[in-house]
Amino acid sequence: MFALASCKNTTCDKQPGENMQSQTIFERGNKLSNANFTGNAWLNSLIDSDSLNQNSVGSVTFEPGARTYWHSHPAGQIILALKGVGYYQEEGKPVVILHKGDVVKCPHNIPHWHGASPDSEFVQVAITGRENGPTVWHEAVTDEAYNNLQK
Amino acid sequence: MFALASCKNTTCDKQPGENMQSQTIFERGNKLSNANFTGNAWLNSLIDSDSLNQNSVGSVTFEPGARTYWHSHPAGQIILALKGVGYYQEEGKPVVILHKGDVVKCPHNIPHWHGASPDSEFVQVAITGRENGPTVWHEAVTDEAYNNLQK
Repeated sequence: MFALASCKNTTCDKQPGENMQSQTIFERGNKLSNANFTGNAWLNSLIDSDSLNQNSVGSVTFEPGARTYWHSHPAGQIILALKGVGYYQEEGKPVVILHKGDVVKCPHNIPHWHGASPDSEFVQVAITGRENGPTVWHEAVTDEAYNNLQK
Repeated sequence: MFALASCKNTTCDKQPGENMQSQTIFERGNKLSNANFTGNAWLNSLIDSDSLNQNSVGSVTFEPGARTYWHSHPAGQIILALKGVGYYQEEGKPVVILHKGDVVKCPHNIPHWHGASPDSEFVQVAITGRENGPTVWHEAVTDEAYNNLQK
């Protein structure tokens, strides 16, 4: 009577109805080509903001070592860690190591960066308020800074 | 030099650094005891709204057959399907079957309900704008309606 789940992951060898969880929740999306990232990262844009919904939601996959430049969000951001080991750092604070299931609430206009750790990719969902304007980008997280993080 | 991922899932038998994905991203949280649900559901409240961040974010787990009552959100809602097979229905429209990776943008003030399918639990993340007031609850989705959905 009821429709069965379809197995959408190409590497999945289980049957619909099994209590499965494959490697990722969301498709990886498109490789980011803008200049505000160090290393390779991919974006799957899940929800665009519009006149009624002021949040954009996207899944971002960082390869090991990849990270954003320093930046800030005029209406803040929420990060949900889905997979791997990531880093999150606000200006003037120690880096925070993120694992699957961790959540970050980033305040308005606070310079910060996030990305993967050196030995693991990192997948996050970012929920970004757009009501106060677009992301403000700053300088790169240098290799020297990244390789000498105080944890 | 770098910290290794810790394996936080109690059923996990893999080593840190493996490209693992266990059954769930977020802990199941607390069983919901309010009167606006049919069947058993659990909430892990991940982010509370505050004066600066107007979104609440929570992971909800529905056992098979469990669902919300009809309700509406004055500032809308975004649903991210993480696991299992779920149902989502807006008033006057056919039910939509949700699988892992599916995303729903629910408009402001549109009566709708969501929950699990009869044969599978369903895990979702709900991102709910709170800037226009709390959720407005309506009547239950009766067993008769649920068991006779047009799909």
